[in-house]
Amino acid sequence: MTDVYKTIVTKRDSRAYSQKPLSQETVRRILQAGRMAGSSKNSQPCRFVVLQDRERKEELAKCGQFAAHIPSAPLIVAITVPGAGQAFDVGRAAQNMMLAAWGEGVTSCPVAMHDEECARQALGLPEGHRAAIVIGFGYAETPESLSRGITRLPLDEFVHHEHW
Amino acid sequence: MTDVYKTIVTKRDSRAYSQKPLSQETVRRILQAGRMAGSSKNSQPCRFVVLQDRERKEELAKCGQFAAHIPSAPLIVAITVPGAGQAFDVGRAAQNMMLAAWGEGVTSCPVAMHDEECARQALGLPEGHRAAIVIGFGYAETPESLSRGITRLPLDEFVHHEHW
Repeated sequence: MTDVYKTIVTKRDSRAYSQKPLSQETVRRILQAGRMAGSSKNSQPCRFVVLQDRERKEELAKCGQFAAHIPSAPLIVAITVPGAGQAFDVGRAAQNMMLAAWGEGVTSCPVAMHDEECARQALGLPEGHRAAIVIGFGYAETPESLSRGITRLPLDEFVHHEHW
Repeated sequence: MTDVYKTIVTKRDSRAYSQKPLSQETVRRILQAGRMAGSSKNSQPCRFVVLQDRERKEELAKCGQFAAHIPSAPLIVAITVPGAGQAFDVGRAAQNMMLAAWGEGVTSCPVAMHDEECARQALGLPEGHRAAIVIGFGYAETPESLSRGITRLPLDEFVHHEHW
């Protein structure tokens, strides 16, 4: 049992993964978490393409500008949608997956596919579908900071009461 | 302590809220959960406008096509971003907030603001900023289904292995 609030506030995106494989049960729970995310009008637009084969990951790594680490992640999940848009629902599903993973000590990071057609080919998506985001999952290797030296703003700077 | 996986898979969007107010500590945890969501290049684009005043909620309710329930939610949080896009990061922050809330028994539902300028005025946002999503929070009143009669697809229909 891992507390939901603690999981949420301690989650940090990371691209440094140990090679320890994820159990089938952990993978199933990550995917189930994505499946259970709510969506606009219950349209359920997201599909998940799961990559564990190294060669397939290497193909996909060529499609993003910051995707070179993809082959080093034991588990890759591409969230695909039909057509443009729907990024809000993708974000909900992605966060569900990343929190379910972090609850089991599995870290993660989303990465964009800048070349959409490249990613569509690598994943074998039908015409008109696209990989809205790709998430790498793995146990944490060494502490890594992706903060770019930018501190998280204090809560007061995020929040306005009643009016901006 | 509420288990993260259980919280994720039992969360259902709902717009039927009891009038029981949320404690300041619960509100703080919801906002802190949103603050701690990761964002692209750590750009932290989201800001949160918190509404608890009935008159302000009524103003905002006029700005969305399915937003009539907004005044009935004890807590409203508008997630705002500068400019267009960034919906993926908004989805991550929104899901963090809704899961932190559900971990304390507080249900929620995101609602879109179809009239962006109306929402910008109601929230007093600076020029160029927009309310990407508005979330209603409250303790569950009566069971309510927003599924539109659409069953959640089985996991097999969400998932493709190695290739679509």
